[in-house]
Amino acid sequence: MAVQKFRSMLYSYEMIAEPIQNLVREFKRLPGIGEKTALRLALHVLGAPLPHAEGLACALVEVKKLIHPCSVCFQFTQNDPCGICSSGKRDQGLICVVEDQASLMAVENSRSFQGTYHVLGGRLSPLDGIGPGELRISELLSRVKKGGVREVVLATTPNVDGEATALFIKSSLDSAGIKVTRIARGIPMGGDIEFADALTLGRALEGRSSF
Amino acid sequence: MAVQKFRSMLYSYEMIAEPIQNLVREFKRLPGIGEKTALRLALHVLGAPLPHAEGLACALVEVKKLIHPCSVCFQFTQNDPCGICSSGKRDQGLICVVEDQASLMAVENSRSFQGTYHVLGGRLSPLDGIGPGELRISELLSRVKKGGVREVVLATTPNVDGEATALFIKSSLDSAGIKVTRIARGIPMGGDIEFADALTLGRALEGRSSF
Repeated sequence: MAVQKFRSMLYSYEMIAEPIQNLVREFKRLPGIGEKTALRLALHVLGAPLPHAEGLACALVEVKKLIHPCSVCFQFTQNDPCGICSSGKRDQGLICVVEDQASLMAVENSRSFQGTYHVLGGRLSPLDGIGPGELRISELLSRVKKGGVREVVLATTPNVDGEATALFIKSSLDSAGIKVTRIARGIPMGGDIEFADALTLGRALEGRSSF
Repeated sequence: MAVQKFRSMLYSYEMIAEPIQNLVREFKRLPGIGEKTALRLALHVLGAPLPHAEGLACALVEVKKLIHPCSVCFQFTQNDPCGICSSGKRDQGLICVVEDQASLMAVENSRSFQGTYHVLGGRLSPLDGIGPGELRISELLSRVKKGGVREVVLATTPNVDGEATALFIKSSLDSAGIKVTRIARGIPMGGDIEFADALTLGRALEGRSSF
């Protein structure tokens, strides 16, 4: 009995009503939300006014109903093509290839890019069964083949899988005869050279520019 | 421009479609979920299969429809009175007074209590405008007045507000002539006496028991 008390970190669920258990299970599916947090969220919802729960439920249904991937760049958008793909102010000859919507938002938020995007939907990861067929690489190639594209910037994550993805796209685009670039890898702004890892510092030196 | 880039920690929202913004706002209402986490959750929902979003939306609506406070002890329950209040196996003469459902679950999970509960719905906090009228204290008094109650255990949080709440309930119950107890405050199991704060250690000595 005493041993069990110390062992049991989570709540015993036989005492929790089924609708609450369901809500906990649904919350737990969200990334970064474990058992305890899910239970805390569920109890918050129970204690909060009805419109709060209904508001979240509505927003969830609405977002899946109204938001779809853009047919050109595959970013999530309400209008098709998206605001960036249909904008006259954006350079339609410049495509930044990103892994997902979060990367796109980070690039967009930097206010340093005035071209368009192409969302791959992940990166090559043979161990997870993600090959070129699972990513939107053929869609990128047909976009380039249609013409009007001058440069493709590869902004995949600078790790093993991301570099492999960039390399694969680079070789796929070789025949198209357009400029393919890769975002610079180096010391982050505000970062300390003393504490930079050897690989990053190597890339920073390799990618040095005239000053 | 450069300054703005360093300042802007959060995403500029003009580029995010309204249904996504709504979902982010709804997620942000949940406790412990900030702007960045809310956006991450919203993007996860967008990328996840439709049944995931619908499942969460359904569970939210269902939980508010099916779960209500027990009319006796005010814990969240599907049946009224709840399983504990209607159980013949629980000591109906022993009431443990807790602040909220989470405290109730923690006590229940300890498997050390075989009585019933009374959920106050918070603790006295004059600064937040929570007085005795905002808590379910009168409901506790009428429960006691009905008779059959032998002992009330006060299990409010051992901080200033929780102690004040316990004291208030103790004095309210004085005329009822029943036993009123307070959970022991002391060194937690596995805790280090060396690192215990003076107040806790003082309480632990005060509440010592024969061995």
